[in-house]
Amino acid sequence: MDKILIKNVTILTMNKNKEIIENGVVVIVGKEIIDIGDSSLESKYKDFFIIDGNGGILMPGMVNCHSHVSMVPFRSLADDEADRLKKYIFPLEKKLVDKDLVYNGARYGICEMLLSGVTTFCDMYYYEDEVARAASRLGIRAIVGETIVDFPSPDSTEPYGGLEYCKEFIEKWHKDELVTPAIAPHAPYTNDSEHLIEAHMLSQKYNVPLIMHVAEMDYEYKKYKEEYNMTPVEYLDSLGILDKNFIAAHLVLVNDKDLDILQKREVGVSHNVGANSKGAKGVAPVVKMYERGMKVGLGTDGPMSGNTLDIITQMPLVGKVQKLFNKDRTLLPSKNIVEMATIGGARTLNMEHLIGSIEVGKRADLVILETESVNMQPIYDYYSTIVYSANPSNVDTVIVDGRIIVRSKKILRIDFNDIKRNLLNMKDKILCMIKEI
Amino acid sequence: MDKILIKNVTILTMNKNKEIIENGVVVIVGKEIIDIGDSSLESKYKDFFIIDGNGGILMPGMVNCHSHVSMVPFRSLADDEADRLKKYIFPLEKKLVDKDLVYNGARYGICEMLLSGVTTFCDMYYYEDEVARAASRLGIRAIVGETIVDFPSPDSTEPYGGLEYCKEFIEKWHKDELVTPAIAPHAPYTNDSEHLIEAHMLSQKYNVPLIMHVAEMDYEYKKYKEEYNMTPVEYLDSLGILDKNFIAAHLVLVNDKDLDILQKREVGVSHNVGANSKGAKGVAPVVKMYERGMKVGLGTDGPMSGNTLDIITQMPLVGKVQKLFNKDRTLLPSKNIVEMATIGGARTLNMEHLIGSIEVGKRADLVILETESVNMQPIYDYYSTIVYSANPSNVDTVIVDGRIIVRSKKILRIDFNDIKRNLLNMKDKILCMIKEI
Repeated sequence: MDKILIKNVTILTMNKNKEIIENGVVVIVGKEIIDIGDSSLESKYKDFFIIDGNGGILMPGMVNCHSHVSMVPFRSLADDEADRLKKYIFPLEKKLVDKDLVYNGARYGICEMLLSGVTTFCDMYYYEDEVARAASRLGIRAIVGETIVDFPSPDSTEPYGGLEYCKEFIEKWHKDELVTPAIAPHAPYTNDSEHLIEAHMLSQKYNVPLIMHVAEMDYEYKKYKEEYNMTPVEYLDSLGILDKNFIAAHLVLVNDKDLDILQKREVGVSHNVGANSKGAKGVAPVVKMYERGMKVGLGTDGPMSGNTLDIITQMPLVGKVQKLFNKDRTLLPSKNIVEMATIGGARTLNMEHLIGSIEVGKRADLVILETESVNMQPIYDYYSTIVYSANPSNVDTVIVDGRIIVRSKKILRIDFNDIKRNLLNMKDKILCMIKEI
Repeated sequence: MDKILIKNVTILTMNKNKEIIENGVVVIVGKEIIDIGDSSLESKYKDFFIIDGNGGILMPGMVNCHSHVSMVPFRSLADDEADRLKKYIFPLEKKLVDKDLVYNGARYGICEMLLSGVTTFCDMYYYEDEVARAASRLGIRAIVGETIVDFPSPDSTEPYGGLEYCKEFIEKWHKDELVTPAIAPHAPYTNDSEHLIEAHMLSQKYNVPLIMHVAEMDYEYKKYKEEYNMTPVEYLDSLGILDKNFIAAHLVLVNDKDLDILQKREVGVSHNVGANSKGAKGVAPVVKMYERGMKVGLGTDGPMSGNTLDIITQMPLVGKVQKLFNKDRTLLPSKNIVEMATIGGARTLNMEHLIGSIEVGKRADLVILETESVNMQPIYDYYSTIVYSANPSNVDTVIVDGRIIVRSKKILRIDFNDIKRNLLNMKDKILCMIKEI
């Protein structure tokens, strides 16, 4: 069992009182944090492997609540195109997405997340067994949701084939400690009500998350208004499928009544501001969500939407977009944004008993940000520094479930060059295919 | 005279045709680019110092069109406060800003800019002679504007003391090759019309830039509406002070008629989206400005407003905010944003004959972005990769005026630790002062 003592760090606990411990020490045995305190703790623990944080900031591992990590081979493709989804994404996925692309894309994307301090991610794609395998091997915590859609998909010749896939997939993974299987109906408008209800029943049976894009698209909003005189949220609620296991991505087009429903049903929210702004989708009312005490975390969306998979570059955007749209520079102080990136994300994924804050008894999912780089000084407010100055390269050390995965900005025990070679091979294949589209 | 040959890079020339040269070579003699081409060029030049770009991206050095670089000692202070300017900035400046703070703050901020690929910046502050000195010593290209305000300032016991300061200051620097002195009336509302006209005459006399915050504040807009029934831009034009030497920062609250005026007068624009969004100031109509062919560059504003001083993190925001506000994901393709960060900025500062693109005869202000880091692959579109994936830490090599200043992400020939120690000392002093405010 690994025994690790981290010292010479400022600890942002992100616990209930948002305690900050200067010159702090965190003690880990196995997967768990067993002690937290000031530097006087150090002498109490002998024969521990010491990590000297060199005056850096120790924060909980960040949580990426919404991603399609295996889409990383498509990153930087068609970024400014009008109908990217139907013109590029769907045709490319149909032609190219296979187990190999999903596995190797996931490996690359997971490396990116780990190197940038994401210790838990929630994914939605095809062949999610491959994402699960990659996550398990690389040692990141994950919720992996198999997509269900009303058309034949890369991993199914039949519409709704994902439901069949899910059954075996959930059986295989649902007792795993790091990887949680999930069911991911793509969106209300790509599933009929019967299959949404079936997906929900499956989620209840295994007590696993149900992940869905909700209230993201103008045409989605219009469809439910016209057909049912309901909002997308009202429609989903009318099917009885909103509950604590439901993780809703985006929620851009929601009104106060929708928020009442979402809060009552304890739905978890992934706020994906990077993708929503780049895609001109609109501004989710995340201040209202936060102020109500809803479960709000941050997500990157897929790398064809949000490009990078780190949470650090989401944080400044969360604040800036809300301040700008609501014409109030005091909205969402940095502390609240770091909250969303950590314990808020844990709540969204119903994992707050395990992760999201630095507390005794919780899993050791931890990140050290170095404060040596030029952008990281001076520090008057640790939260402001993280939100408005830090970038992914300031992540020095990452620990997941008590295992040191990144140290001195390098991923350990993994041949990243092999993973990169694989990605570049996929790129060449994609370049050939694009010519045929 | 230094003779440098850069090879093994993809060159984004940012010239008129936006040529991209794969596996390119750039040849530098002294301050100047003397040849550009593909790898076949290499054999033509013997005895040159070789920089192997390792497959990276060679782009023009970035231009930061608006900053208050010496405010870096205050970074992360009072970020989410309502009236930060009058409650924190002005009192702190009054108590703390002296030659030493300006010089040492500038040294630190210039290091941050150089390390992130900014090779030219345009500054506005007090004791600008100190900023000029720091820029000159560290080898960055700069326009340094001494502030003029209608109240006693850190470097003057009298209102408008900056005008006196300017005379000597301009004489001292206006023949320097790297540093251009400038006159910087703080804003329309902090100067009376007589002194604005006097400042403009001084700018004409020496043919130096006149820098001003314009149409940034709600109360500014209101004042000119009420007092003159004019917009701030109309008011400035009525004084006859808008011309080619005028560099206007912000321009958030401008209408189409204002844009007509600004275009006709050939005013240069610094678009500061990071500071404008974090400060909830509003959205400048930068798409319209760009489409009209106005001179538009990007600026960070001071580190109490925009926090970091790099241009790389401004770029994604420029695109995202415009796409979001105008509900159109196709607006401002990445190429246009990279244009603003380079040749656009050069045009804003009337330096396009010298810098902003990689062309024979121009000064060698160049940046190599490495493409080894996890966030930088795959690349289908170099501009998209720079705008939506890169971060400041991807800057590997920086050359200014033919001198290699940054190599392998480290600043050369400068004791950065000494500069940092100095910054941390200032921070301690500031922390003591804050208690008194």
